[in-house]
Amino acid sequence: MARATTLEQVAERAGVSRQTVSNAINAPEKLHPDTLRRVRRVIDELGYRPDSGARALRTRSSGLIGYCVAERQDGSINVFMDRYLRALTAEVERTGRHLLLFTAPDGEDGLAVYEDLLARSAVDGFVLSNTTVGDPRHAWLRAREVPFASFGRIWTGEPQPGPWVDVDGASGTAQAVEHLVAQGHTRIGFLGLQAGNPVGDDRERGWRRACADHGAQVDDRLVARSADEHRDQGEAAAALLDSDDPPTALVAANDAIALGAYAALEARGLRPGTDVALTGFDDSPTAAVVRPGLTSLRQPIEQIAARVVRLLDHPEDDRGELLRPELVVRASSVNDDGGRNG
Amino acid sequence: MARATTLEQVAERAGVSRQTVSNAINAPEKLHPDTLRRVRRVIDELGYRPDSGARALRTRSSGLIGYCVAERQDGSINVFMDRYLRALTAEVERTGRHLLLFTAPDGEDGLAVYEDLLARSAVDGFVLSNTTVGDPRHAWLRAREVPFASFGRIWTGEPQPGPWVDVDGASGTAQAVEHLVAQGHTRIGFLGLQAGNPVGDDRERGWRRACADHGAQVDDRLVARSADEHRDQGEAAAALLDSDDPPTALVAANDAIALGAYAALEARGLRPGTDVALTGFDDSPTAAVVRPGLTSLRQPIEQIAARVVRLLDHPEDDRGELLRPELVVRASSVNDDGGRNG
Repeated sequence: MARATTLEQVAERAGVSRQTVSNAINAPEKLHPDTLRRVRRVIDELGYRPDSGARALRTRSSGLIGYCVAERQDGSINVFMDRYLRALTAEVERTGRHLLLFTAPDGEDGLAVYEDLLARSAVDGFVLSNTTVGDPRHAWLRAREVPFASFGRIWTGEPQPGPWVDVDGASGTAQAVEHLVAQGHTRIGFLGLQAGNPVGDDRERGWRRACADHGAQVDDRLVARSADEHRDQGEAAAALLDSDDPPTALVAANDAIALGAYAALEARGLRPGTDVALTGFDDSPTAAVVRPGLTSLRQPIEQIAARVVRLLDHPEDDRGELLRPELVVRASSVNDDGGRNG
Repeated sequence: MARATTLEQVAERAGVSRQTVSNAINAPEKLHPDTLRRVRRVIDELGYRPDSGARALRTRSSGLIGYCVAERQDGSINVFMDRYLRALTAEVERTGRHLLLFTAPDGEDGLAVYEDLLARSAVDGFVLSNTTVGDPRHAWLRAREVPFASFGRIWTGEPQPGPWVDVDGASGTAQAVEHLVAQGHTRIGFLGLQAGNPVGDDRERGWRRACADHGAQVDDRLVARSADEHRDQGEAAAALLDSDDPPTALVAANDAIALGAYAALEARGLRPGTDVALTGFDDSPTAAVVRPGLTSLRQPIEQIAARVVRLLDHPEDDRGELLRPELVVRASSVNDDGGRNG
């Protein structure tokens, strides 16, 4: 970005004092109309953006918090956007500000957008979402002392470069395992994301730990991974169902994979709940309407929004915070002896 | 709106100079406390809003377009929020601005929020969504000459008080009927929203017109209405399925009602597609993952966002515009002779 025009440059070109330029912007009624016209012409010529130059002098902030709307090149939809943005908007308003939406490319390429928003004093800080492995934004913002808080931990690097809130995925899958163990299952499969996906690895850890803690089998042959975490076709479930010693229950790392398992079960004449217990993760709108209903883990979206805004203004609470999802039990994980009222 | 109070009026009433009023707002430390109190009292009495008075003099706009995030007291989720806000943000950025999110109550109560945003020059205009019958915002904004454009027509009153884009619901259900007629159906039921809901009435009109145009039966006994358009339990479909002369195909006014019909069909040992053809409306994420897949009408969300922003800046195109949804055919509406690969 070219260096921004300064107040001084405008004053010099217009042959007036800095105060006069400031008045032209903030108190035009104080100036003679001819002077005002002259200063404004120079402001236009130089493309001067007063907010940028005057930032340090300003007594008022923009009153806006920036939020980047993710691009989602995979075409997937975040069905929680409605709940999350509504909650976030309301929380930010509670602090007397508003949310400014913008788009930016992922990774380093996107930092120019953040820089431009700051240079124009368009925002006072950022709420980050859609964090990725190696996400450069947190360290970049911290280095510039820009207030921010993140929904989603930064998966690499300690200490974490700033406050964050995240869903405790391991706690969620552990709850699912405990629910299945309580119904007598001891051989519980895990339908995971691609290896190395930190969200999937986290959820797998919870499954593994809870199985070990509660006497269920822990065996790598009980793990299968989905090739497409957004549109799973059931291959992962098929691999476990067709094995020599198939599990009697399946914990899926997300609802899309669990719904893929519905297809794999149906193709084998099996029904979720009745024949094989099945749980998802996310409690998507679909979970409640498929038949039988899909047991899943509901993310505490409203609580996340409240905590993110709190951390934005209280970065001294700079430790990261994991929020526990809630298991919503539906018919897919409960053997009701052939009942079809799922 | 009453004409805004001016700096001059405050100065006159308080018996001080304009500069003193300006100081009371911008540099209160310069004034004697008694003077400051007096001026502030008059500011309150007259409801003077400094930014409002200065608005006409400003050389710069805020560069922000306001967008109200709906409250959704019914707890429903708008699963298109992600796609729509992403598209809208990108379109607004293309014009060099950003989107400002805010919350406001529905109806007249919400207008104070719009007024406050304008008074503070926080936004230059609005994109409206979630329009309701008797929505007061359009006429209110037009009266104030505030730029706006609406996703969603204003259902009452002609001429329409401002530019809008909407999905052509009637065209959508007509496409569904044509698709079903092409497969030999002549008795096609309609699962509607509550009578008087303009979205539902519009979609019913398309069903009725296409049935008449293509030789299918038109009969009020082929219409049943859902009691809850967000969480239909299948009662509407049940009423038609259990009638003396049940339809062989069902056109639902939205996906939630179509998914309710899945339950009603299952309870009767029937399968969508195989036994009774079924279509939805909205092409929600669930439509693609239920089994069998639900034929539905995809709303042109990205096109809507582009047109809304275009109308915001070109209100002379002030006629309203209906965009055609696209029929996405899946197994729920196609009898493949018992195939189960839905």
